[in-house]
Amino acid sequence: MVVTQVDLAADVGESFGVYTYGEDEALMPFLSSANVACGFHAGDPMVMRQAVKRAAQHGVVIGAHPGYPDLVGFGRRAMVLTAEELEASLHYQVGALGALAAAEGLTLRHVKPHGAMYNQAEQDERQARALAHAMARLKPSLLLVGLAGSAMERAAREAGIAFAREAFADRAYAPDGSLSPRSRPGAVHTDPERAAAQVQSMVRDGQVTATDGRRVAVTFDILCLHGDTPGAAAIARRVRQELETLGVAVRPFS
Amino acid sequence: MVVTQVDLAADVGESFGVYTYGEDEALMPFLSSANVACGFHAGDPMVMRQAVKRAAQHGVVIGAHPGYPDLVGFGRRAMVLTAEELEASLHYQVGALGALAAAEGLTLRHVKPHGAMYNQAEQDERQARALAHAMARLKPSLLLVGLAGSAMERAAREAGIAFAREAFADRAYAPDGSLSPRSRPGAVHTDPERAAAQVQSMVRDGQVTATDGRRVAVTFDILCLHGDTPGAAAIARRVRQELETLGVAVRPFS
Amino acid sequence: MVVTQVDLAADVGESFGVYTYGEDEALMPFLSSANVACGFHAGDPMVMRQAVKRAAQHGVVIGAHPGYPDLVGFGRRAMVLTAEELEASLHYQVGALGALAAAEGLTLRHVKPHGAMYNQAEQDERQARALAHAMARLKPSLLLVGLAGSAMERAAREAGIAFAREAFADRAYAPDGSLSPRSRPGAVHTDPERAAAQVQSMVRDGQVTATDGRRVAVTFDILCLHGDTPGAAAIARRVRQELETLGVAVRPFS
Amino acid sequence: MVVTQVDLAADVGESFGVYTYGEDEALMPFLSSANVACGFHAGDPMVMRQAVKRAAQHGVVIGAHPGYPDLVGFGRRAMVLTAEELEASLHYQVGALGALAAAEGLTLRHVKPHGAMYNQAEQDERQARALAHAMARLKPSLLLVGLAGSAMERAAREAGIAFAREAFADRAYAPDGSLSPRSRPGAVHTDPERAAAQVQSMVRDGQVTATDGRRVAVTFDILCLHGDTPGAAAIARRVRQELETLGVAVRPFS
Repeated sequence: MVVTQVDLAADVGESFGVYTYGEDEALMPFLSSANVACGFHAGDPMVMRQAVKRAAQHGVVIGAHPGYPDLVGFGRRAMVLTAEELEASLHYQVGALGALAAAEGLTLRHVKPHGAMYNQAEQDERQARALAHAMARLKPSLLLVGLAGSAMERAAREAGIAFAREAFADRAYAPDGSLSPRSRPGAVHTDPERAAAQVQSMVRDGQVTATDGRRVAVTFDILCLHGDTPGAAAIARRVRQELETLGVAVRPFS
Repeated sequence: MVVTQVDLAADVGESFGVYTYGEDEALMPFLSSANVACGFHAGDPMVMRQAVKRAAQHGVVIGAHPGYPDLVGFGRRAMVLTAEELEASLHYQVGALGALAAAEGLTLRHVKPHGAMYNQAEQDERQARALAHAMARLKPSLLLVGLAGSAMERAAREAGIAFAREAFADRAYAPDGSLSPRSRPGAVHTDPERAAAQVQSMVRDGQVTATDGRRVAVTFDILCLHGDTPGAAAIARRVRQELETLGVAVRPFS
Repeated sequence: MVVTQVDLAADVGESFGVYTYGEDEALMPFLSSANVACGFHAGDPMVMRQAVKRAAQHGVVIGAHPGYPDLVGFGRRAMVLTAEELEASLHYQVGALGALAAAEGLTLRHVKPHGAMYNQAEQDERQARALAHAMARLKPSLLLVGLAGSAMERAAREAGIAFAREAFADRAYAPDGSLSPRSRPGAVHTDPERAAAQVQSMVRDGQVTATDGRRVAVTFDILCLHGDTPGAAAIARRVRQELETLGVAVRPFS
Repeated sequence: MVVTQVDLAADVGESFGVYTYGEDEALMPFLSSANVACGFHAGDPMVMRQAVKRAAQHGVVIGAHPGYPDLVGFGRRAMVLTAEELEASLHYQVGALGALAAAEGLTLRHVKPHGAMYNQAEQDERQARALAHAMARLKPSLLLVGLAGSAMERAAREAGIAFAREAFADRAYAPDGSLSPRSRPGAVHTDPERAAAQVQSMVRDGQVTATDGRRVAVTFDILCLHGDTPGAAAIARRVRQELETLGVAVRPFS
């Protein structure tokens, strides 16, 4: 067994006003941590408050999931922000969620950038440094969450903040270890059994079967589920059960 | 002399993107405290950060100036929010500014609602209570700023938070002690001498000359200037000078 | 039989970005007209274009469904706009939808205000006049849609524009002929049979059974269904079938 | 004399809510045409209506100045939109302005993309085609405004719509004929005499003196002034006077 404990996480709080997104309520009981949207790409104060309350009820550890100021594009469109803009934007969003969390007695453990902000910071050293630096300036105990081996991991090390590596239970991996793009068929595992099998392989062998059948090494501290996958709660339930069957403890990474 | 010390304040950080509003830079040297917009009615993360930095440079104490989510209306249009919406919105905005302040080594001292949120909370007990309660839940040491005798003052007392009464150096008063509406001619003093005379009267006699010539009692801890009054910095300079001439100490209320 | 033809309508195009709202696709085949959101309370250019394309495919006549600039509140929160602001806002929204419609070969037939804009214009003569006047200035052939006997009906007459009276298939009526507030249990008919029975009564007798059992007269040209009622498409199917059984022609009012 | 008539234009309507941007009122008397912002990067319905009214008063021809949905970035940040998103966004914005114009008796003559949308469409064939195609679908008589020799010019030709080439009176040119970036010192001519001299050279010789002293050919139908240049109105007055002295007619291109 390569892994003996896992932090099971999902993105939550991505509804907005009358619009519902994801299955937060059904998902929450299976998680050990959650990434809460902060109002820029998704989420509004009421939605965020609701997400924080649910996390508190289920003993789920939370972190900030900041995004670009692009509600209509759900933060998935690449934007070019200066380092100063990124820092100010991160402080704003993390602070906003932090206050809503504090009012429910919770403290933020981590920051996981969303969508295009995540994708750009995976590869772009300047962006990754801006984020890590902004976190160090705000609260050095915050954990940065991203892909193992990414620019974010290097930037976190440089900035002197802790880094948590995440892998995905419900996403297919390309042969080079990256995620298979959402545009490809089969990029998202909607079958709970498929996700459970991938988790078993990750946990037992530290590997996943890539889209071409090859085995690829995957290193992780946090296992992420996508709350917007159809049937997300059923997948979460099955993955959680699989982890328990394997004797892997589900608990917040720290 | 009725008053021996005064907290000289103004609303700042109300620019947005390329748009400049007010004369923050020129105003700041004369202030002892500032109310920083929080991104809903005005302000954006970069603008707020800039305002915080300037306050830090000049040793100006800051607080949050939250508003309704109505950028195009500058938060001046009445909106009906539930108590829960008000609370979540206040936590969000205060938290966002709080993080930007923390990154510059500052702590928020107070909350002063903006525009329609202020006007509604002056008279509407339900709104005032929602705000005061939200502050108590977030951080009981925060000071609520509003008009003496308003619903906000009563709500602050009930919620167990401190209240600071503000008066206005550059606004004309109606005979009943309320502010003369902006729609009336002469509602705003743009002549620095006029503002200085009003301040002298406030400080020496605890009174102002109302629009009908009558004398009205005014009680205050904070003397507010409007950063968007034409020539705001010249008014601030003159008022500050007047206070010094009168031997009144300008320092943050606490 | 009081009514021999009916215009069966619903609000559509109220999704936004990744957020889906209502059951536009399933609903459209049963409608003769549709009210398309215009980007202020809901809808974005892509969503609106999609709604227009679907309407074109199904031969559904469309109109504009403008709202207050309050996405997070879905345009349901009362706001105070001046007559000039209302007019400019209406022109902007109607024009935006009109261009998207023109690109698909459609022309707008009507305007039906949304949410709080509708509710305020039902009772407030000033608001109703501002809307009717704005329509007359823009394109006098546009039809205003609202409740029979409302301020909007009077304002349309004054402004010289046509008015279409709407009634609701899936909403319960109060004894005074107004809609039972959404906050009351049973305010929305989610049972298709219930809606069909109400429609039968409206069409045969020109009456509905109010919440207290009394019979109330209802006059209408357009029968509105709510696309966001759970099971909206099933209700639409059943209502359409009922109308056909009764021999009532379903076609656009003009 | 290379040029005997010129269309003198500026971007207007870029204020927002309480925020003023540019010197529309002072500028308008000197212009023959104006590019009106459409609410995405700047402008709101009231601001746009005001700009349209002023244009009507001064007999100024107007066109749409659509931008990316990025108010805080003033539409100056690169964004990646699909061709469908670009088209829907263009139809929405052009339609919105078109209705406000129609209410004042004006028709839109042209479309000039703003900021990053302009810059990307200058070089990116796909973007340029999407814009030109969207215009052809909406109203083939609309004129596209852009730089001579740009991807937009080629796309307009392909789509069968007319193209108007613009040059800049108040911007310095690089030796390759492109605009000197705003980040460079001297990129913007704030001295009216400097702008007048450049205009004289453009009109008499079809050339400008580039930043390195070399002479560069410039071909244009529209001469653009930036309303946000400090002293924009003084520059406009001087340029207009220069054109009149040179015997060049100032009138809308068509």
